Amino acid sequence: MTTKTLNDHLNWRYATKKMDPARTVPQERVDAIVEAIRMTPTSSGTQPFELIVVTNAQVRARIAEAAGGQAQITDGSHLLVFAAWDNYTADRIDEVVKLNVDARGDLPLLHAYYDNLKASYLPRDAEMNYAHAARQAYIALGVALVAAAEQEVDSTPMEGFDPEAVDAILGLKERGLRSVVLMPLGYRDAEADWLLPMDKVRKSRATLVTEVV
Amino acid sequence: MTTKTLNDHLNWRYATKKMDPARTVPQERVDAIVEAIRMTPTSSGTQPFELIVVTNAQVRARIAEAAGGQAQITDGSHLLVFAAWDNYTADRIDEVVKLNVDARGDLPLLHAYYDNLKASYLPRDAEMNYAHAARQAYIALGVALVAAAEQEVDSTPMEGFDPEAVDAILGLKERGLRSVVLMPLGYRDAEADWLLPMDKVRKSRATLVTEVV
Repeated sequence: MTTKTLNDHLNWRYATKKMDPARTVPQERVDAIVEAIRMTPTSSGTQPFELIVVTNAQVRARIAEAAGGQAQITDGSHLLVFAAWDNYTADRIDEVVKLNVDARGDLPLLHAYYDNLKASYLPRDAEMNYAHAARQAYIALGVALVAAAEQEVDSTPMEGFDPEAVDAILGLKERGLRSVVLMPLGYRDAEADWLLPMDKVRKSRATLVTEVV
Repeated sequence: MTTKTLNDHLNWRYATKKMDPARTVPQERVDAIVEAIRMTPTSSGTQPFELIVVTNAQVRARIAEAAGGQAQITDGSHLLVFAAWDNYTADRIDEVVKLNVDARGDLPLLHAYYDNLKASYLPRDAEMNYAHAARQAYIALGVALVAAAEQEVDSTPMEGFDPEAVDAILGLKERGLRSVVLMPLGYRDAEADWLLPMDKVRKSRATLVTEVV
């Protein structure tokens, strides 16, 4: 499909500030991005988050209101909401065990592994477990940003929103979920986007990396 | 360099359990992975983490001890340690401002943006700021996992380690850093890795994704 490298994708993408409201991301491109999120590796394979894909214009308008009016949410065609588990529970881990047993067989090793995981996670504070789950969602965010670029779809990761308001709009709390990051998908309005002509800013390798040889 | 898609990479990779200690990842492949981490987008462009690349065998042996003896750390040839900022500080944000001004010019918009950021971050609890920084490191982890697969380099993300011990081994605390996740790089020992022949386990799209249309 492409001969571009990952680093080409990372250089092509940018946090799109102005999207073209007249353009819609084709379903097969959204599907490829969602598939990459689904295949993202997570700690102990628990995939402790859900993805809400919002196309409904009214719902997106309400979410935009809860995000300081950031227009990419409504100018784009799709909004991805990454919602982390509010806690690890025995039921949630048991579902992961069942999925593993279905794929790999009823191995004693599997049960021992997840029994251990329960013994470690379940007594912990919900907030600590949520923080752990939220980090896993961010692995998927990293993969999703690459996936969107590969599809030549523009996106903007957004943390600037009221998570409780978004949870209320989407009914996430009742599902044991907490919204952690938003990612509108769409196409850049190249003439109206002030950020597009600006150079990308990244620290030097010398600043970011230490080698212990 | 490749005609594989992101989803090919995500399907090729797996959390390698047994690496071949006789093989070393070539420097140019490590460089490509490090470059992808460097180019990873982060919240407000702060890149609030550092990357420690450990090749020293003795240091890796000590880190392996602090990680329950997980042999990939010593059987692989390189260990990536993602270390998040322990807090946001005025100095750290000022360095980001300087980098932006150098690349984009001395724009009032830039200063206003980061003044706002300081007003929001600096009064917050260090633990909350660290949690935020750690999430940004996980975006880079997601990108790094893709980068390694693109380079046909095996890797294993690891959270099962004593972060304070690793911080002490690498002298991270004095640098205002906290280790959050490890990622050994190497090459699978295909005959000795029990996980390699097993099916990959992922939730169905129906389980993971809700559409709001």
